[in-house]
Amino acid sequence: MDELKKAIRDIPDFPKPGILFRDITPLLQDAAVFQQTIDIMAAPFKDNPPDVVAGIESRGFIFGTPLALALGVSFIPIRKPGKLPYKTRSQSYSLEYGEDTIEIHEDAVKPGDRVLLVDDLLATGGTMEAAGKLVQELGGEIVEYLFAIELAFLNGKDKLKSAPVRSLMVY
Amino acid sequence: MDELKKAIRDIPDFPKPGILFRDITPLLQDAAVFQQTIDIMAAPFKDNPPDVVAGIESRGFIFGTPLALALGVSFIPIRKPGKLPYKTRSQSYSLEYGEDTIEIHEDAVKPGDRVLLVDDLLATGGTMEAAGKLVQELGGEIVEYLFAIELAFLNGKDKLKSAPVRSLMVY
Repeated sequence: MDELKKAIRDIPDFPKPGILFRDITPLLQDAAVFQQTIDIMAAPFKDNPPDVVAGIESRGFIFGTPLALALGVSFIPIRKPGKLPYKTRSQSYSLEYGEDTIEIHEDAVKPGDRVLLVDDLLATGGTMEAAGKLVQELGGEIVEYLFAIELAFLNGKDKLKSAPVRSLMVY
Repeated sequence: MDELKKAIRDIPDFPKPGILFRDITPLLQDAAVFQQTIDIMAAPFKDNPPDVVAGIESRGFIFGTPLALALGVSFIPIRKPGKLPYKTRSQSYSLEYGEDTIEIHEDAVKPGDRVLLVDDLLATGGTMEAAGKLVQELGGEIVEYLFAIELAFLNGKDKLKSAPVRSLMVY
C-alpha cells in the first residue's frame, strides 16, 4: 500500500535515540486517505462481518471506531488499567523494561463472538497478544489481528499465531 | 436525546466513592445507536463542514474519528504529553488536585482553519478549555465545543465561552 505510505511521516529518534517513528497524523489529516485506509481495512469483512471490532487504547480507537461503524458492528475498547468502569478482566504483558497491563469489560465479548482486533501499529506484538488472550478468556473467537502499520523487523507476528495477521503498511 | 441515554450505563462510585460514572461502552456496542450518535453530531455541519475535527485523547478519538470521516474533513488528535512525535505546543490546566497537560502538533491547525473540538464528556471543562487555547494559539477558529455527555451540575460551560457548546446527553 505505497499510496498510504506517502501519508506517513518519518520522525527520527522518537520516542528515543535510534528509533524511527512512523507518524500517522498526516494520514488522519487527509480525509480521503484516511477513508481509503478504513475502506481497505473493512473490505475483507463486508460480506461476512465480525460480531465485534475491538480497538486498543488509544490509537487503536482511531482506526477501530470508523471500522466498526463501516461494518455495522459493535465497537469495544481495550484500555489501560483503571479506565473501564464496569467489571473487567486484566492481562499483563512484558515491555522492553518492566511490564504493562490492559483491561477489557467482562460483557464486551460474549462466548462465540467473532472478534476483529485492531491497533495502529504492530511492533513487538506484546500488547496485541495480551488483547487476544482477553478476548479468548471471554470465549471470543479472534478472526484477525489487523494493523495500519507493521514493523516487520521486530517479528511481532511470531506472538500472534492464534489468527491471521494483516497489516496495511509494512516496514 | 433520551434514546441515546438508554444506551448509557450508570456506574456508582467510579472512579471514586460518591461519583456516578456515565459509561458509554454499551452505546459503542450498539452499532445502530453509535451510528445515530455520530449522525446527530454531524448533522449541523453537513452543509458547511469545519476544516478540522479535533478529538481529545482518548475517548474523544472514539467520537472524533467517525465524525471527521462523516464530514469528510481532517482529523487531528490532541494528546497527553510525550505522545505526539512531531513539533508540539503544550497547554496545562488545573485538576481537582494538581494539574495536567495536553499537546497538539504545530501543523495540525493552519491559521484560519475552522475547528470542531470533540470529547466524550464535559465535566469541569478544564481539558477542553486547554484544547481550545491550543487551537487558538495556532490561529484556528473554534466553531463548536461538542460532547456526547455533559454533567451540567459541574458548570463546565462557564470555561468555554469562546464558542458554542453542544452536548447530546445532559445530566
